[in-house]
Amino acid sequence: MQKLARPLPPLAYGGDYNPEQWPLSAQLEDIDLMKAAGVSLVTLGVFSWAHLQPVPGVFEFDWLDEVIDRLHAAGISVDLATATASPPPWLTHQHPEILPITADGVTLWPGGRQAFCPSSPIYREHALALCRAMGERYGDHPAVVLWHVSNEIGCHNALCYCDVSAAAFRAWLQSKYADLDALNDAWGTAFWSQRYTEWAQILPPRTAANFPNPTQQWDFRRFSSDTLLAHFIAERDVLHEVSPGVPVTTNFMVMRHIKEMDYGRWAAELDVVSNDHYLIAADPEAHRELAFSADLTRGVAGGDPWLLMEHSTSAVNWQPRNVAKQPGELLRTSLAHVARGADSVLFFQWRASKAGAEKFHSGMLPHAGTDSRVWREVVGLGEVLQSIQAVTGARSANDVAILFDWDAWWGCELDSHPSIDITYRDQAEAFHAAFTDLGVGVDVVPPQADLSNYRLVVVPTLYTLSPETAARLSAAAEQATVLVTYFSGIVDADDHIITGGYPGLLRDLLGIRVEEFLPLREGESVQLDDASAADVWAEIVTVDSADVVARFADGPAAGGPALTRRTTEAGQAWYLATRLAADALRALCRRLIDESGVVPIAEGIPGVEFVRRIAADGRHWTFVINHTDIEICPNLVGVDLLTGQSGSRIGVKAGGVAVIEGA
Amino acid sequence: MQKLARPLPPLAYGGDYNPEQWPLSAQLEDIDLMKAAGVSLVTLGVFSWAHLQPVPGVFEFDWLDEVIDRLHAAGISVDLATATASPPPWLTHQHPEILPITADGVTLWPGGRQAFCPSSPIYREHALALCRAMGERYGDHPAVVLWHVSNEIGCHNALCYCDVSAAAFRAWLQSKYADLDALNDAWGTAFWSQRYTEWAQILPPRTAANFPNPTQQWDFRRFSSDTLLAHFIAERDVLHEVSPGVPVTTNFMVMRHIKEMDYGRWAAELDVVSNDHYLIAADPEAHRELAFSADLTRGVAGGDPWLLMEHSTSAVNWQPRNVAKQPGELLRTSLAHVARGADSVLFFQWRASKAGAEKFHSGMLPHAGTDSRVWREVVGLGEVLQSIQAVTGARSANDVAILFDWDAWWGCELDSHPSIDITYRDQAEAFHAAFTDLGVGVDVVPPQADLSNYRLVVVPTLYTLSPETAARLSAAAEQATVLVTYFSGIVDADDHIITGGYPGLLRDLLGIRVEEFLPLREGESVQLDDASAADVWAEIVTVDSADVVARFADGPAAGGPALTRRTTEAGQAWYLATRLAADALRALCRRLIDESGVVPIAEGIPGVEFVRRIAADGRHWTFVINHTDIEICPNLVGVDLLTGQSGSRIGVKAGGVAVIEGA
Amino acid sequence: MQKLARPLPPLAYGGDYNPEQWPLSAQLEDIDLMKAAGVSLVTLGVFSWAHLQPVPGVFEFDWLDEVIDRLHAAGISVDLATATASPPPWLTHQHPEILPITADGVTLWPGGRQAFCPSSPIYREHALALCRAMGERYGDHPAVVLWHVSNEIGCHNALCYCDVSAAAFRAWLQSKYADLDALNDAWGTAFWSQRYTEWAQILPPRTAANFPNPTQQWDFRRFSSDTLLAHFIAERDVLHEVSPGVPVTTNFMVMRHIKEMDYGRWAAELDVVSNDHYLIAADPEAHRELAFSADLTRGVAGGDPWLLMEHSTSAVNWQPRNVAKQPGELLRTSLAHVARGADSVLFFQWRASKAGAEKFHSGMLPHAGTDSRVWREVVGLGEVLQSIQAVTGARSANDVAILFDWDAWWGCELDSHPSIDITYRDQAEAFHAAFTDLGVGVDVVPPQADLSNYRLVVVPTLYTLSPETAARLSAAAEQATVLVTYFSGIVDADDHIITGGYPGLLRDLLGIRVEEFLPLREGESVQLDDASAADVWAEIVTVDSADVVARFADGPAAGGPALTRRTTEAGQAWYLATRLAADALRALCRRLIDESGVVPIAEGIPGVEFVRRIAADGRHWTFVINHTDIEICPNLVGVDLLTGQSGSRIGVKAGGVAVIEGA
Repeated sequence: MQKLARPLPPLAYGGDYNPEQWPLSAQLEDIDLMKAAGVSLVTLGVFSWAHLQPVPGVFEFDWLDEVIDRLHAAGISVDLATATASPPPWLTHQHPEILPITADGVTLWPGGRQAFCPSSPIYREHALALCRAMGERYGDHPAVVLWHVSNEIGCHNALCYCDVSAAAFRAWLQSKYADLDALNDAWGTAFWSQRYTEWAQILPPRTAANFPNPTQQWDFRRFSSDTLLAHFIAERDVLHEVSPGVPVTTNFMVMRHIKEMDYGRWAAELDVVSNDHYLIAADPEAHRELAFSADLTRGVAGGDPWLLMEHSTSAVNWQPRNVAKQPGELLRTSLAHVARGADSVLFFQWRASKAGAEKFHSGMLPHAGTDSRVWREVVGLGEVLQSIQAVTGARSANDVAILFDWDAWWGCELDSHPSIDITYRDQAEAFHAAFTDLGVGVDVVPPQADLSNYRLVVVPTLYTLSPETAARLSAAAEQATVLVTYFSGIVDADDHIITGGYPGLLRDLLGIRVEEFLPLREGESVQLDDASAADVWAEIVTVDSADVVARFADGPAAGGPALTRRTTEAGQAWYLATRLAADALRALCRRLIDESGVVPIAEGIPGVEFVRRIAADGRHWTFVINHTDIEICPNLVGVDLLTGQSGSRIGVKAGGVAVIEGA
Repeated sequence: MQKLARPLPPLAYGGDYNPEQWPLSAQLEDIDLMKAAGVSLVTLGVFSWAHLQPVPGVFEFDWLDEVIDRLHAAGISVDLATATASPPPWLTHQHPEILPITADGVTLWPGGRQAFCPSSPIYREHALALCRAMGERYGDHPAVVLWHVSNEIGCHNALCYCDVSAAAFRAWLQSKYADLDALNDAWGTAFWSQRYTEWAQILPPRTAANFPNPTQQWDFRRFSSDTLLAHFIAERDVLHEVSPGVPVTTNFMVMRHIKEMDYGRWAAELDVVSNDHYLIAADPEAHRELAFSADLTRGVAGGDPWLLMEHSTSAVNWQPRNVAKQPGELLRTSLAHVARGADSVLFFQWRASKAGAEKFHSGMLPHAGTDSRVWREVVGLGEVLQSIQAVTGARSANDVAILFDWDAWWGCELDSHPSIDITYRDQAEAFHAAFTDLGVGVDVVPPQADLSNYRLVVVPTLYTLSPETAARLSAAAEQATVLVTYFSGIVDADDHIITGGYPGLLRDLLGIRVEEFLPLREGESVQLDDASAADVWAEIVTVDSADVVARFADGPAAGGPALTRRTTEAGQAWYLATRLAADALRALCRRLIDESGVVPIAEGIPGVEFVRRIAADGRHWTFVINHTDIEICPNLVGVDLLTGQSGSRIGVKAGGVAVIEGA
Repeated sequence: MQKLARPLPPLAYGGDYNPEQWPLSAQLEDIDLMKAAGVSLVTLGVFSWAHLQPVPGVFEFDWLDEVIDRLHAAGISVDLATATASPPPWLTHQHPEILPITADGVTLWPGGRQAFCPSSPIYREHALALCRAMGERYGDHPAVVLWHVSNEIGCHNALCYCDVSAAAFRAWLQSKYADLDALNDAWGTAFWSQRYTEWAQILPPRTAANFPNPTQQWDFRRFSSDTLLAHFIAERDVLHEVSPGVPVTTNFMVMRHIKEMDYGRWAAELDVVSNDHYLIAADPEAHRELAFSADLTRGVAGGDPWLLMEHSTSAVNWQPRNVAKQPGELLRTSLAHVARGADSVLFFQWRASKAGAEKFHSGMLPHAGTDSRVWREVVGLGEVLQSIQAVTGARSANDVAILFDWDAWWGCELDSHPSIDITYRDQAEAFHAAFTDLGVGVDVVPPQADLSNYRLVVVPTLYTLSPETAARLSAAAEQATVLVTYFSGIVDADDHIITGGYPGLLRDLLGIRVEEFLPLREGESVQLDDASAADVWAEIVTVDSADVVARFADGPAAGGPALTRRTTEAGQAWYLATRLAADALRALCRRLIDESGVVPIAEGIPGVEFVRRIAADGRHWTFVINHTDIEICPNLVGVDLLTGQSGSRIGVKAGGVAVIEGA
């Protein structure tokens, strides 16, 4: 975060602030309450376009001037949105051609938010004009410490199939392939009579009579992500020009259910990475997904600290059943992010709305007002953050890496595959959860990450990888342990099978050859000869230079290898040919850390997170986050900044958190 | 029903009659069979537009003249439809712009019925011309005792999103809000950058990238209901003009799965309320939903008798599995309506069709002909109705009211709410079923109803209510008992949260304050400390001037109040913070009737309905409808008009019915 | 198959061959490997339109010349596709009006395959031009032994609702009905005000506000099938003209999930019937569906041998979970087709693709290459086919027939019926499975088949049948046994109920009368008084000239007849009024074969198929296909052509196959 001209507040605390929804009296009260809660940073203007530019060409900034000045006077910094996230009604009314269109040809009308085609030049022009006006007006304001481009880019409109998008897609393809023969080869158009003879014949993968060409689908995802990123870059460049020195971010959505944006590629374009994260209410162990997402956010940020731009004080409004946070859960989930590199704890939103689609989304100040559990926990959290400000800027140093790649995710989950049960992110999450329960810290990193400092590298279901990545994995396996799982290395970047036996480029590394896939039926499970349970997948594996560690005991691959290990000079390369049940996966992970010399942060306790941040000067803190309903006493020596306990017998209450300096 | 010039037959018996589907020989047979069955009223012309006006501008009435004359000669009265329910092919062919369009932009083509946009001026013009021609031709015919406007208005086309509808919606909004600022305030357009600056920018809530504005959605439902009602009024006014003295109705669809029309507001526009009701085949206790619907029909009719315009002799054709009525069920379900105020028993339809989409819908005369169980029961039912004609015109007098409001239903089930398990009508039905099993008669009434004569008023999940309703509930609680359940009083009519603690306007009445919602996960249940089981919902309740009657024993609100009671001068105000299981709900209802002094009609027997009608002269009849498979002997004294049994030991057979005069 | 000028190879072996996807080196290798596997026939050009005609008006045949010559030189015959299955991008780009449109108005864009409206004259013109060019170029080539029109006609585009289709539908209707009154009568348009007064008013059954007219829906299915067939005929006629003497086929898709094409009517137009068949991966007993489909294919072929044009060596790619074939399953499933009249074993496809939507579909040569289980089994299968070539041309002679009719299928599964659980093909399959487990060979035949040689004719759920079919069933029942099941004979060909009691035209034959349908609820089951379990359906049956064999013991029809039998001069007519569970159905079938004198091929063993082919000279072979996991020793005397075993104690291994000559 070295680019920050005006420093962000340490462990910045606050959230989205939408004063235009409230009368002045409420806005004045806000300032007092923000101070009471320890708020140091608010995000302004996210959905203010219609207020900032009520009619074409006319900007009304006075109201915002007042808000910012008032905040500044109170010592509260501002993350200022460019306000381009949701075009005002006058724009879509004047230009209905900017509305997005689904693969089925359904227009997505205004009424919600993000009702624009990402490829629309009309949208782009209007957005950049507003962005420039904002930058010019507020770039020098001393309260403004960060620019917030748009908001959750691509959340609802990532994939648009309209004619404007079609033309943009063709331009992107021309830039990628240069000539049509190359595209025809890459897309395998010899199949199903799809050879293109003019660029103009190419369309987005709109609804077809059956499966559209898979490479066309995959390229369309890449194009769509690139197009959204290009919009970010366009706004960022305007801001860098008119507001130099103020860093620019946009809030990612690294979450289980968001897969449209290749954040692994996006991160390099941001001055500082920020992320929005919401718990999955239906999942009673949603903290596991949070932990994975936060580690992945740090991974795309190259290990740098990042900003938690949004999460919630309690329930959200957009899931089927919006479960509220239990007492203490706000603290646990907030510090779970901080433990993994977040240097801020921000919320959507400051004051819960009275009207509109998100009125049932919790806020820092709930509908019930300050006489409420939520408000008391918000105030308490502000105090906790004050007490641990020293962690600001600290990084991590873990022995285990899990490779994660959006491009492979897209490829893995294309249609017409061996099994719809072959999914991607959940497999990476499963490994992450297993290591967490073992007390091991994990980095989740993109394939281009430097792997040389890890003792153990896990590669779950990586449908595609480049020869360079394959080479780096081989290099890693010479001195460390690498584990690859089924349905990895199947295709090249054009979705062409690497023939001769799977997993293509990884065959030599792993010393095995997969001859045929044997997907399991829905609900079917198999056993390995070490009694591990597994499901979803089996395959015919033949070993070459590898040893068989476990075999399928039953099912369609009965008797064949299920887990293999090739020993290198000073490392190992393992292959797992099925999806292990949680217990079996944890046992495998325990064996892998033992054999590779990984040292846990603490002895693992299922449901307890141990996460360490390390400052440049060597100071370090172990966060202990206890999701269980019993008090624990981890074997860690230091001082708990939250309770002041010190020594080697620090207790962490049921549902509690400790931040142990020195451990 | 005081407006009727020519009287309707007492307990009118008959059904929809579509002679245009049959040859003359069948029509002549119909008359004989109708007499044999005791038919006194038939509905003609419901789907006859294409026969009455085969080409634009040309009416062909001769065939209908003959049919009506033939019926009149046989002493059978006619409920004459205006025939506007389904436009003929020539109209939609000439004017495809009248076809309805879904939120997704899908045109709903002809081929079924009701293929028109309710806002279409072209449809309106053609429909009124036909209506006027019908009225002029038949207004004086002595057989015609009732006008039947259109048919099941809004059954399939209530919500149209076409451009014509958009313009009509804007006109409705202009009329409601007068100026755009008021609309912007009401809709909370400050959120998500939705501020409108011209009326022309406003659209129906067509499919959007995410949740459309909730107030826009809610207003669109109100507009849609109003638009359909306006069509009824337009036809009614024509008929009142050209056929004075003949009452006008249209058949409501007060049923569980129909929620588009606000019948609570519609009823006042009808000269006599009529209803169509069909059992839900998948529900083995569908008679409970029938009972609720019939009581609700009486409720919207202001307690007046009403007409059962359609039900079925046996199975219908439009549900997934169309279960037939069992022997005796026709009698039970028919008298269940009569018991609750129906002064007619009419069916769709007289003779089961040979062709078309409803050919598998049962009729009074089935495909099998007169040698059939159905025909024999139809004839028997005709005789029973003759024997109980004295109940015609009698009303009810119950101690318990359940409040029911379509507008609140719409609001309650909008998207982006705390839980999709928060539903509305089923909660009102659950209370109704509990009281029925306790032998207690219930009125189901709109919020504007006079509450002063009830001992107990139940208000289930009333998402919104007006200050006036809140005041009348408070007044009621001064002398009677009021029970309000969770997720009531949350918002005002604009869907704005009433902040400071739920349930807003009812806080003082109830003496409690709800701080936060704690929705439960799918399938999750909790227990109260009185061992009641509950699910779907919990919340943080703090008591103020109320006592805690029961607490949550586990779950997210463990230890907090679940059921509270505030005692007033001479009444009580209860609050229930969760959804009770059926047993627990019945126990609560028993306690409420005990404490409020409600006297059951008879000692309740689960599965047996006790319903009383009371004539103006004080004569009264208790209907005993035995859905169980054992004979019962209720503690009621009088004379059973069906069997002639009298005294205090009248037996009602398994599956049987008694109508006990004097009880 | 007497029309073949150049003979097809005996038990032709091979598959789809798409050399345009591969470099020359691979193509040269193909020839060697084909020889190694015993390949004798390949299908060329199925998806080659874009390669054969890269731009309008220009044909490029050189590459195909080379491929065909190379195959011919290697002694491999060619089934040459007309290549019209999938129009190239230039055609849909130039003429987007040929794209199909769904009932919802969604355009089906290019990107997959078959992106054309079957009624499009533009498509037809271009396809016939290509077909003619292909025929002229290759009609005389000595390698070409068969023409393959298009491919899987109607697989994805059978039902198109565009305006072009609408006009074609009207023309078809005019040809069928001649005048509008006849159409209005047939469609029952007197109901729901649907009377048409001009042909131009008629549309396909596009999405409507509720159920579109059922006869309109049914006629649209007939029109759609006829339109696809007309395209086949148009190509066939061109080929007959320019390539006389070379037989013409198109590959049917007689499979459970394909119902759009009335193959019972199509077959007569083909010079030789061919079929594609793929196992349903989710069904662990998918071989039963295969057996039914193969017997039905022979049935539509009039008992003649037919060609298995496509199946798979292992997994496919288009099902949710694409289960691979287990060792030995390739042999079993291949010979299961041969046993039922297939004179070829062909696959999609020769070499598994590297790219495109079907790259994960298995091939004869898998991605793993020749060092693979699949390849070894492919080579082994080639050898087995060599050893049983003598069966080529042999026919069947079974005592049992199951009637099967696509038109009745369409009618049976229209909407607005008594129960969505009334389905058609599964009922015919259930009987077929029961007989198979009893060791009985079955013919599955269209209603127009000659029934005079069967001892037992089963008629499951035949919603409609013609008076001629009814008469032939009655004739059959005079000397043999006929069983009819529920929901048969309900309507005439216009979907008009035959009133007076179901099952209409079959009442006299069966001696019963069904008065009312009593569909069961989801999951509900009933028992008969012989302890048979049943579900889905009950009804009120009264017997006339029939005896009651079993009664409903419970459920809505308790006490009424469930199974009846009318005895004729020398035969019997049974009626079954419910859906029996598998065990009960097998018991019924056993009783029927006993009473009708049907002699099993062998004593039945569940999971083992016994199928017999009989040559014109009297030689015969019994195929024994053992799907169980134990060795069996059937009581059959002869010589097993696969193992050479002979005598009366021939063992068939678990999962094995025997072809016993003389048995």
